[in-house]
This record gives sequence, C-alpha cells and structure tokens, in this order.
Amino acid sequence: MTKHRIVVVGGGFGGIQTVHGLKGSSADITLIDRRNHHLFQPLLYQVATTLLATSEIAWPIRRLYRDRKDVTTILDEVVDVDTEAKLVRLQSGRAIPYDTLVLATGARHAYFGRDEWEKLAPGLKTLEDATTLRRRILLAFERAELSEKTADRDALLTFAIIGAGPTGVEMAGTIAELAQKVLPPEFRSIDTTATKVILIEAGPRVLAAFSEDLSAYAKSALEKLGVEVRTGKPVTAITEEGVTVGETFVPCRTVIWAAGVQASPAAQWIRAEADRAGRTIVGPDLSAAHDPNIFVIGDTASVKQDDGKPVPGIAPAAKQQGAYVAKVIKARLAAKPAPAPFRYFHQGSLATIGKRAAVIDFGRIKLKGGLAWWIWGLAHIYFLIGTRSRLAVAWSWLWIYLSGQHSARLITQKETLKDEA
Amino acid sequence: MTKHRIVVVGGGFGGIQTVHGLKGSSADITLIDRRNHHLFQPLLYQVATTLLATSEIAWPIRRLYRDRKDVTTILDEVVDVDTEAKLVRLQSGRAIPYDTLVLATGARHAYFGRDEWEKLAPGLKTLEDATTLRRRILLAFERAELSEKTADRDALLTFAIIGAGPTGVEMAGTIAELAQKVLPPEFRSIDTTATKVILIEAGPRVLAAFSEDLSAYAKSALEKLGVEVRTGKPVTAITEEGVTVGETFVPCRTVIWAAGVQASPAAQWIRAEADRAGRTIVGPDLSAAHDPNIFVIGDTASVKQDDGKPVPGIAPAAKQQGAYVAKVIKARLAAKPAPAPFRYFHQGSLATIGKRAAVIDFGRIKLKGGLAWWIWGLAHIYFLIGTRSRLAVAWSWLWIYLSGQHSARLITQKETLKDEA
Repeated sequence: MTKHRIVVVGGGFGGIQTVHGLKGSSADITLIDRRNHHLFQPLLYQVATTLLATSEIAWPIRRLYRDRKDVTTILDEVVDVDTEAKLVRLQSGRAIPYDTLVLATGARHAYFGRDEWEKLAPGLKTLEDATTLRRRILLAFERAELSEKTADRDALLTFAIIGAGPTGVEMAGTIAELAQKVLPPEFRSIDTTATKVILIEAGPRVLAAFSEDLSAYAKSALEKLGVEVRTGKPVTAITEEGVTVGETFVPCRTVIWAAGVQASPAAQWIRAEADRAGRTIVGPDLSAAHDPNIFVIGDTASVKQDDGKPVPGIAPAAKQQGAYVAKVIKARLAAKPAPAPFRYFHQGSLATIGKRAAVIDFGRIKLKGGLAWWIWGLAHIYFLIGTRSRLAVAWSWLWIYLSGQHSARLITQKETLKDEA
Repeated sequence: MTKHRIVVVGGGFGGIQTVHGLKGSSADITLIDRRNHHLFQPLLYQVATTLLATSEIAWPIRRLYRDRKDVTTILDEVVDVDTEAKLVRLQSGRAIPYDTLVLATGARHAYFGRDEWEKLAPGLKTLEDATTLRRRILLAFERAELSEKTADRDALLTFAIIGAGPTGVEMAGTIAELAQKVLPPEFRSIDTTATKVILIEAGPRVLAAFSEDLSAYAKSALEKLGVEVRTGKPVTAITEEGVTVGETFVPCRTVIWAAGVQASPAAQWIRAEADRAGRTIVGPDLSAAHDPNIFVIGDTASVKQDDGKPVPGIAPAAKQQGAYVAKVIKARLAAKPAPAPFRYFHQGSLATIGKRAAVIDFGRIKLKGGLAWWIWGLAHIYFLIGTRSRLAVAWSWLWIYLSGQHSARLITQKETLKDEA
C-alpha cells in the first residue's frame, strides 16, 4: 500500500504547527515554502528597528525537520493547484501530487487599492522588508546630517507610521527611542531628539483589539516617548514629499505601512470563495467548502468565532488551526470519528511600547507598564524555536536594556546614498 | 585660529586606527566612508558560510566615535580629490576641505583583466558579498535536492574556490564541513556528503605566505575534510557550466573568487604613481611622493619592507600604518621632529581549516592543529570591537562547537529560486 501524501504549503506558524501535529502519522509529508526559513514575525519589527539581527528570529525550515524522516522540505513557490488531478504546481515547473493539501500561505500588505503607495510606504512581512525598513530609517538620519536646508532636514527627521495595531505601535515606540536615547551623541550637525514620529490611525484609537483603558494607556506611553498619535482620520495621499492625513499635509521622507493586509491567492488556486480580504472561506473543520481534501488555515483563511467576529490574524490563531487540522487528518487516516468543529481560544493580546512598557489584555486580567513588559518579553522568548535563539534574543535584549545600545544598526543591500535616491 | 582639518577616507582597519591614534590632537577630524559600518574582514568568510550573523562582525562607524566630539562621520563616497584647492569631492556633490588627508580606501577583487568572471565567481569584500555567497551556496544544495538529472545534481554539488590564501582555505574548509557534517540529515533526495569542494591555486602550494611544512599540513587537513586541492595550474575559463583548470574542465555551478585584489582608485584621485595592482607608491613616512599633506595607507598603498618585499595586505599592516600616520600628523601639529620612517612588524600569519585545525606562523614559532585553532579563535575574539561582539562571537562559536549547528543559514535578498536563475 502506498503511503498517504500530505502536502503543506507555507512554513509560517500554521504550516509548521500542522507538520508538528502530524508527527507519528503514517503519511508522507511534503512542506513547500518559497523561503528557506521560518520567520518569527511578532519580532520582525525589532529587526527593522535595529534591536535584533536577522538570524535571531529566523530558522532554516529544513533544519526543523532534520530528525523527521517523514518530512520532505521543498524550496519553491506555488503557482496553482490542480484540484482534479490533485497536483500542486510549482514555479520551477514541477508538480507535487497530494492526497491531502493544507494551504497556510499567509498574507501580504494591502494598500486598499492604492498599490502605488507600496513603494513609498513599505510594509513589514519578510526579512527583506525588515532590512529595507532598517536601511531607510538609518539613511534618513544620515541624510539629515548632510542636509543643508532646514526644511529638508525636518522632513528627513519625520517618520510616519500608518496603522496603530501592535506592529505600528511597536515600530513608533522603537523609532522614537532610537532617536531620543541611542543616536543623539553620534551626530554632529543634527539634534536627533528633534525627530518627529507620527502614528496615524484611521480608527478612533490605537490598539483597537485591546480594552479602552489599555488603549488609552498605550497612547499616553507613546506620547511620553515623543510619539505624536493622530487618530480618527485616514491617510488620503502619500508622495515622496510626505503624507496627507485627512486634509492636513505632513512633510516627511520615511513612511511605514502597518495597516491592511491581503491574503495570499490560495482561494484562486483552488477556485474557492473568498471574503473581501481575499481569505478563503472554510467549513467548520477548516476544509474548503467544495473539497474535503483541502484545508486552509492561518491568515489566508476566513474563520469566524462563536460571536461572529473573525478569528484574528495572529500567530496563536494560526498555530491552533494548524494543530486542529493535524488532528482532523490523523483521525481520517485512522478511520476514527472527526474531532468537533474548530473553536478559536483567545489567549490574550500583547503589545510593547518602547523599552519598559507594554499592555496585555487577557480578557479578565489586564496589565500595563513595567510588569507587562517583562511578561511580554518572557512570553516571546518562550515561543522562539530552540535553546540557541532563546538565549541569543534574551542576551540581545539584556544588552540593550543594560547598555542602551542597539547592536544591529547596519545599512546593507545598497552601496551608497545615491543608489537609494 | 582655526583648527587644523584632517580628513580620513575609509573606515576599515587603517582609517579607524588613524582616527584612534589622533585622539587628543587639537585637530578637527572628518571620517568619510561609503558604508555605515566598519567590517571585521578576517571573519567575513564566516558570514558567507553560515557560521556568523552579519551584525556580529560589523559596527556602525558613527557609534565608535560617539564620545569623540572632535570626530565627524560622513556617509558618502569619494569621487575625486582636488589637491590644489585641498578638497575631497563626494558623490552627493559636497566638497570637504582638508589640511591633511589620509586615504585608507582599501581594495576590491581583481580578475586579472577577465572582468566578465566577476558575475560568475563573486569575491568576498563586503557584507553584501558575504550574504550573496551564502545565498548561492545554500541555493546550490536546494537546487540539487530538486534536480532530476544526475549531471545537474553533481555540478550543483561541486564548489570551486579559486585562490588558496587564508580566505580560500577557510572557505573551502567550512563549505566541506557544512556538506559533510551539518546538512546530511536535512535532505531527502541528495546525499550532501557526496559534495565536491575543489580548491584551485595557480601557485605551487596552498597558503604561500606560510612555511612549507605548515602549508603541507594545511593541505592534508583540507583533504581530510574532503577538499580536493589542485595546485600549479591557473583557471583559464569560467562559464555558467563550470571552470577550466589548465586544460581540464570541471562542471560546477558555484565558483568563489579568493584570488587577486585591485587597489581603490586613490592614486588616480591624487594623480600619484601607482604600482601594477593600482596601489599608490608612498614615501618612507607614507605620504604621497608629490604632496606631504596626503597620506595613503593600508591595501591601497604600496609599501616595501626592508627586504624589498611588499607589506602584506592584511589587517595588522593597515593598523600599524594608521597608528604610524597618526603619530606623524601629531608630531607635525606639535612642531616636533618627524618619527623615524615606517617599518612594518610582521606579527605572524594565521589561517584556520575547518572546526578544529589551524596553522600559525610566528616566524620562529610555528603551530598547527587543535592548539593553533584555539589561539586563532582567541586572537580573533580579542581583535573584535567591544565586549558585546566578543561575547556574541564567542557564544556563536561555542554553540557551533558543541551542537554542530550553524545558526545563520538564511537565504535572503531574492524571493525565489527563479529570480536567481
């Protein structure tokens, strides 16, 4: 008898958890990703803001499965799925046959139809996004140091972050700290403490997923770091000269996108129904409505909670779905009854604001300030993969905490100032 | 009275040492580099071969001088020098006036007039060079895993390194170890222990700067790791299909250049005489023959030892020259007699071969094997800048030593296999 073939597409939190949950099944598992590494996205903003090095939050996927002889890793990109012939088609031209398919292909930034904004206001999803943002942020200070006109200098020292979810809040807080605490003694012409960091949110408040009092606390903690919080008005234009918030034009040369996301084209590959954000609509067991052999999980799936609200696009949700789908597949392989429909359990929301403050919303328990910051840090270290990464990140943070120095302040990829212009 | 203006171009070992030596002078110092970081080049091969992370061997130049108010750092590229008006012209269009100029602008790879080889056989001088090589090496294994033809697979699993100086020897040893010890359990279609690493040297032996017995030991240590050493014949052709050594064609898809270097165009900027490798010929006090206000040091200067041999292009030589020039400038500023002419003191030659062997040639004392490896490691940690980097690199090496795992195995910069092709 040939083995059951499971193909998992995407080595993010959902895909990794699926493969993990399938341990001990008799199936042959193939994991496909277009990158060679699994990325710990919740800390990606720390690479963009010079706190952590790239290799501290990314692991070769292949390495994770060195002892799992049932798992084959393929570095390639999916271009389509043939649901009739049960084949995953790859960019290299190869086609991988499956009996069961799990799509965990995540999401990218979305610019609400204004795709021309992408170049001006890059987002943060991949390691390259993070090193690109790092380069832009550091180069803004370098250019300001060399600028001869006050207006240029002020625009170079203004950073606009669009979207005040956890990523936007964390980026804003860290850039403000960099400008206020780390860089001042290093520049001779400019005063980096005059840097303006503007956090722009179309909704009524920052961290909308948190309770109102935590949201208010986050706002005041940001303001203490010197961040200007502008809520209630959307960005209506972005140019090389600056952003327009509502009717007001703000001159600035660095704009960072932390607002909308758009799901991967998984729904198109399998010709399934998608919601407005492109997420595949799935059944109660997370399988595609028209094909019980295909599961869709994580940021590329549209799943509702009991109260009708969508399951949030965060790592714990993807991990829960990955673990659930592994259980469903194992039950099928063992000809056992299917598990109860998927239910999302919200463990809590966390966000950090600079070096000593954070907010945590566990539902009944709410924490803010220094204690929350320590819990935030320990929780993230716990969820990293492997002893080495945990020690490395803990050590990097400890160093920053004690010395006030950021260690990963490298401008890479482009040779000169001119190349970037 | 206006202050004396010293402009130092290049933040490598020579430039940094010059600025260091000028501490306490009354001059205004400007340090110009086109990169924002000082790079510890002797360990760059470890980034290329997944042993270290980029931020472990690079430091923001600005950061090094945060407490030196007499030092201004400029991120820009020199395009010319106006020796009449005493101005350094920058790519941004700015011109920086100087009273004394120190050029420490290093060298790049040279392909002996075969510039078309550069794309096929990249060298190793910058952080981007290192991450590019890392990507190529890791992608070769990924492609081999997916290849369907034996000939393709064999060529993908063949790595040619051209030039058997310390960098070439160290690259060859580390790639062989990666293939033999780290990767085997992670691949399902290929046997990475079948990888061929070929070290090609036109001269008669590897590590020509070392004594003959150390050179013979290095060769046998390399061969123990599975490296094929081919000496005595030059590379005559490089194509996408492979390299030709003498008359013999070797199919291989990854070629790494560790042979010749070419000095920066410093001699052209100041219209000075240069040697064949483009290095500026300088006087006994390292000043340009025709202009005592300009010094040229490090890999971009042509300096002879007492026995007529050229001073080698290594970090300790550049540092000695930087320290010497700082002394000459300080003496001039204090209207004291000039120091005796520059004399290079050779402290020794070091090279490592894989994880447990090294060779050290101190002249009278020669070491090889495990003890040499420990001295090599400690010496390199000692020469890193700052406690944090020393601890980080020591920790990374300790982890690799104990676990056998390389931690920086990331393929970045390009999204997919296809992009690279």
